Amino acid sequence: MSAGPSLDEALEEASVGASVTVSGPATATGLRRARAWLTRAAEPGSVAFWRFVDEWGPVEAVRRLRAGSAPDAVRALVGPRAQQDATLADLARAQRCGARLVTPEDDEWPALGLHALTVAVAEEPGQPRYQSPRTVAPVPPVALWVRGAARLDELFDRSVAVVGARASSAYGEHVAGELGHDLAARGWTVVSGGAYGIDGAAHRGALAAGGPTAAVLACGVDRPYPEGHGALFHRIAADGLLVSEWPPGAAPHRHRFLVRNRLIAALTRGTVVVEAAARSGAQATARRAERLGRPVMVVPGPVTSAMSVGCHELLRDEALRAALVADAAHVVEVVGRIGADLADPPARPQQARDSLSDVAVRVLDACPVRRGVSAERLAATAGCEVVEVLRVLPALELADLVQWTGTGWRLTPRPGGAGDGPEGAGGG
Amino acid sequence: MSAGPSLDEALEEASVGASVTVSGPATATGLRRARAWLTRAAEPGSVAFWRFVDEWGPVEAVRRLRAGSAPDAVRALVGPRAQQDATLADLARAQRCGARLVTPEDDEWPALGLHALTVAVAEEPGQPRYQSPRTVAPVPPVALWVRGAARLDELFDRSVAVVGARASSAYGEHVAGELGHDLAARGWTVVSGGAYGIDGAAHRGALAAGGPTAAVLACGVDRPYPEGHGALFHRIAADGLLVSEWPPGAAPHRHRFLVRNRLIAALTRGTVVVEAAARSGAQATARRAERLGRPVMVVPGPVTSAMSVGCHELLRDEALRAALVADAAHVVEVVGRIGADLADPPARPQQARDSLSDVAVRVLDACPVRRGVSAERLAATAGCEVVEVLRVLPALELADLVQWTGTGWRLTPRPGGAGDGPEGAGGG
Repeated sequence: MSAGPSLDEALEEASVGASVTVSGPATATGLRRARAWLTRAAEPGSVAFWRFVDEWGPVEAVRRLRAGSAPDAVRALVGPRAQQDATLADLARAQRCGARLVTPEDDEWPALGLHALTVAVAEEPGQPRYQSPRTVAPVPPVALWVRGAARLDELFDRSVAVVGARASSAYGEHVAGELGHDLAARGWTVVSGGAYGIDGAAHRGALAAGGPTAAVLACGVDRPYPEGHGALFHRIAADGLLVSEWPPGAAPHRHRFLVRNRLIAALTRGTVVVEAAARSGAQATARRAERLGRPVMVVPGPVTSAMSVGCHELLRDEALRAALVADAAHVVEVVGRIGADLADPPARPQQARDSLSDVAVRVLDACPVRRGVSAERLAATAGCEVVEVLRVLPALELADLVQWTGTGWRLTPRPGGAGDGPEGAGGG
Repeated sequence: MSAGPSLDEALEEASVGASVTVSGPATATGLRRARAWLTRAAEPGSVAFWRFVDEWGPVEAVRRLRAGSAPDAVRALVGPRAQQDATLADLARAQRCGARLVTPEDDEWPALGLHALTVAVAEEPGQPRYQSPRTVAPVPPVALWVRGAARLDELFDRSVAVVGARASSAYGEHVAGELGHDLAARGWTVVSGGAYGIDGAAHRGALAAGGPTAAVLACGVDRPYPEGHGALFHRIAADGLLVSEWPPGAAPHRHRFLVRNRLIAALTRGTVVVEAAARSGAQATARRAERLGRPVMVVPGPVTSAMSVGCHELLRDEALRAALVADAAHVVEVVGRIGADLADPPARPQQARDSLSDVAVRVLDACPVRRGVSAERLAATAGCEVVEVLRVLPALELADLVQWTGTGWRLTPRPGGAGDGPEGAGGG
């Protein structure tokens, strides 16, 4: 099936630092193959497994697992799969359906969003606590299988999760569709799980607005579940992305949906729950998002509807501090909320600048007039962390000081601005 | 029309302390006639007028107004009405429709609820601020015209306002009716404004449960508005109360509804808004209730319904701290909420007593075993203020330590309690 070197040969090469990244499954580097191997070796969501990989690095972690020299707890997670190797087959299978493996070593790795999981797992106790099926440890993925043309980090940079019940009502689907449409029309990526009901309605609304949307799956990206959404997944892959932690061919086991949900929460700037029954999975997703520091938004509904009971429970939970949202404007108000760096949404830009924090002023000064640049570029120019830049950008945007061109950030053109010339559309 | 002494003679008598209260319009005391006169002399809701009456007492206030020796600002409010006297006619007219004047001097005066207005007016500035038509000063009424057999204070002791839009939807009316029914079934008096839409549905729901309900009107209790609710008002007067600050015959002028709304907020333990359009009167009522220290509760609805937009605005207003309620149990949870005197709703009564505050223990000790007694009696026995008793009673009730017999408070009978004898129904 594969023309490349054996996995162990590739690992050997990688460990001595000989290889350079070349595209194509057969020529994948040892590091890439190690990551691919790890996605099949153990179920994601295990603290012990992630820590083992984090400690040794993926290449050495795989070598130790295959050599039987990993700790017992980690070896138990992998079992007989330690001696198997489907990496080249998996990579080839991904390539055939237009998918690829994205690893933390790649430029498009969504490091910022996943940072919340890295922070969260660091706070987990050394000895894993008893975990009920409902609680999934906040662990970063070792790699992501991604199907579609868009860059993973860019698509998720301004993204909102819209989730809810599969057994949704006509009301819920209508609202999810409107939200998906209006968020996409405002330049936000609508992220959901691709399920029937609310998920599907949100994806379709976004596609109807011509905006990108992403489905984070609990199975392989080559066989997205449910099959009845085949046409929808095809459109999502064409305009947006299908994303999964599991390798091609993986089946949508029940437990995987819960593991997947933590990824939806982490990758997005906030989660909107549209319809949820009492004590439902959508509620668990909302609480997970809150624990990851992501705002939770909830759409209310008729108190006579069983599919809104869970939503109202979330809104009544004072500890959760969920925001009631009735439309996309309310959602953008939350996910684009003024951060700790700015006091209030200022009425006039002239005054706005005076109230800016030190970092915000530096980011503003780093912003080009015409061509939009990435947050990473802004951070380099401003001399601060990317995370700081991303923290102040929403506030600067709300204050109408900077704008998103679709590909980057630039200063908002001022009417009569001296020597700014005509407004050029930001380049790629 | 009247056989009694002239108003001025009656005031003269009252000012020398000669008279004793006797029932019947013609024999009304000077004090009672002074209160009746004041309800017709000026529109309620004026800080200056209320302070003048508070300073001089009603009898002397009326004498000064009639003699032209009141301050100009107050005289301007009364105008030529200073020389008119319809008190005996008003009292007779009230009597004919089964109504009476209730004054602060009467036992049934709802002093506790109105105390919030007394506190609020004390905080008003000496020079009245500019008041938009939407803002009404929080001023206590000088007296209340009441139609129906129930005691005013008892009916409002455990009461909840259920208010909302006149142009309500079928959904809103359904929910208001259910709430009215279920609150009445739990022993709470449902208070509203008697209007079409939500108000009417709430009243009807309470009546359907056989519970009392009260309509606080913006016109005379002998001609309740709207006329289309004639049969409903008749049933309310038969089982509950019609209440108004305006004398018999008063017309429902637009401004009076806003003035009336503060009374609904003050007289009840909390206000539930069922449906409200954007920037509507129901929102103003909710904000008024919050300023008077009354919890605001809001029923959500479909985000696609214009009649729920105002409700969602209220729930989105963080400063208001409105509680989302979906049913009567949620409402009772708020209005019967554990006060500052108790920590948590204790699971077992034995432990509950240990966590009681000093006042709560004294109130508990003052509670009789069989026959229910009033909060006033409890205060006298416990040696504390009535307001303190009323603050701890809900918590004691929630902890199942005391119970409301329908007419008074007593200890909750314990199974196997030593020497308590059979549980007697509380007397009148």
